[in-house]
Amino acid sequence: MALDRLIEGIVKLQNPTVAGLDPKLDYIPKYIKEKAFTQYGETLEGAAAALLEFNKGLIDALCGIVPAVKPQCAYYEMYGWQGVKALYDTISYARQKGMFVITDGKRNDIGTTMQAYATAHLGTVAVGGTRCTPFGGDALTVNPYLGSDGIRPLLDICEDEDKGIFVLVKTSNPSSGELQNLIFEGGETLYETVGQYCEEWGDSLPGKYGYSGVGAVVGATYPEQLFELRRDLTHTFFLVPGYGAQGGGAKDVVPAFDSNGLGAVVNASRSILCAWQKTDAPEQDYAKAAAQEAVRMRDEIVSAIGKITL
Amino acid sequence: MALDRLIEGIVKLQNPTVAGLDPKLDYIPKYIKEKAFTQYGETLEGAAAALLEFNKGLIDALCGIVPAVKPQCAYYEMYGWQGVKALYDTISYARQKGMFVITDGKRNDIGTTMQAYATAHLGTVAVGGTRCTPFGGDALTVNPYLGSDGIRPLLDICEDEDKGIFVLVKTSNPSSGELQNLIFEGGETLYETVGQYCEEWGDSLPGKYGYSGVGAVVGATYPEQLFELRRDLTHTFFLVPGYGAQGGGAKDVVPAFDSNGLGAVVNASRSILCAWQKTDAPEQDYAKAAAQEAVRMRDEIVSAIGKITL
Repeated sequence: MALDRLIEGIVKLQNPTVAGLDPKLDYIPKYIKEKAFTQYGETLEGAAAALLEFNKGLIDALCGIVPAVKPQCAYYEMYGWQGVKALYDTISYARQKGMFVITDGKRNDIGTTMQAYATAHLGTVAVGGTRCTPFGGDALTVNPYLGSDGIRPLLDICEDEDKGIFVLVKTSNPSSGELQNLIFEGGETLYETVGQYCEEWGDSLPGKYGYSGVGAVVGATYPEQLFELRRDLTHTFFLVPGYGAQGGGAKDVVPAFDSNGLGAVVNASRSILCAWQKTDAPEQDYAKAAAQEAVRMRDEIVSAIGKITL
Repeated sequence: MALDRLIEGIVKLQNPTVAGLDPKLDYIPKYIKEKAFTQYGETLEGAAAALLEFNKGLIDALCGIVPAVKPQCAYYEMYGWQGVKALYDTISYARQKGMFVITDGKRNDIGTTMQAYATAHLGTVAVGGTRCTPFGGDALTVNPYLGSDGIRPLLDICEDEDKGIFVLVKTSNPSSGELQNLIFEGGETLYETVGQYCEEWGDSLPGKYGYSGVGAVVGATYPEQLFELRRDLTHTFFLVPGYGAQGGGAKDVVPAFDSNGLGAVVNASRSILCAWQKTDAPEQDYAKAAAQEAVRMRDEIVSAIGKITL
């Protein structure tokens, strides 16, 4: 069960965080972009080369500190198929370095199509008599709007290929309440209803440490809901965005954890990727600055939740 | 306003349908696959080459009959970045042939990230001093679960670049009601609430023919809801999946149209792509079979709704 592997990584490194790899060109040091543009021109291929070099440096610096990375598909698609190739190469490189990869695609569709997304991001596909790995992440974020049909094809692949999913429950953005906080006639909000489905969907993927292969995305920017969901969804592991640049701090994420310091992995993207822009160090030290920020974040969170034990 | 262009194409061809390009290898004639595998091996590159040749043949045969195509991202991602390159090439080819391209990605995320998806699929991105087009579709399908933050970045690009979006409202799959049909305390269902947001979001993108740049996805498999939504969402154009292989027929989609025969575009994917598998003709005639099925579908729908007028 894939989230078991994530949990084991968290315990080993005593670090319940994930580094979001959202590499806009604005976040990338000039020397990397200049090199890439010299080789490939100011093209999508050049942008993709810069993304990949930036990411590899970050992964090298972070892999002994942070157990997981979360590449956000949008920032790769923004640079065309060339950017999507950089996504593939980033996933491969991070996995080679022993990191758990959460592909943040928030994919969703009807069952037959979701089968294709599940294959794309977590499985293997037959090409003639050969099986190929399209992207090869360890987990995928997904959107629940279409109901169970859009989730079940993922569960089969998670079971067969030892992978996991994170379902959007309560997102970190300012307008997340517009639909998610509305209360149904039965008395539950939309996000609570989706949370209950996560527990149900997870029943078929039990894990060694009490958490299933079906996780939930719950934002650090809503600590009250985080507290309630942690209390109610006892088998659902949380991916918690919204720490750092979006405004969430260590005290906001504490409710996401259980008494063993397990139950959640906290994401930070911009605060890690752009750490170098806040230092006086040469831009060549961008990965060092990212590692320092990752350590600071780890220490801040671990000092708030205590030692993490299985 | 981009949906105006779609509407003009529908009226010109007197055909309110869109061909879904969901090219699984299983749907592709052997001779195309053999040629691609001979050249590239049984690799993702080989699969992508087969996809693209299949699509080009379909586009050549359909472009004088059907005003729009809807490539489904999942079926390209399933063949890795190589498949995503075939998506890019398919979009370019269809646009060269004058077709309106709806990229079916059901993308969704928080505002800053949605900006990246909007740029990826509908906009242009700066690489150094050069502007590049990552995918270049005319419209994108999106998922509303995150609320207005996740939609507004798209509206800006739609206005600047003459593009449109289709928001998931009531999807065609069997479990779509699990969340979408639940009734909030105010008496409206989730899908009705999203429908009302579509009208609101569309206010900033008014169109020449009464329909805004914010469309809605409403499945042919739920004709009753289709009827109610058409009645209530007077400025929202519908993308209607679920016709053909999913079970919807011409009488099911009639409620999607207004009295001018406008207001909706009906998608069929498998029934068109796989038409050749139901004939005795040689597989080389796959595109001809697709065109025949597209004409049959057009005639069936138009005979039910009458002449389409602006």
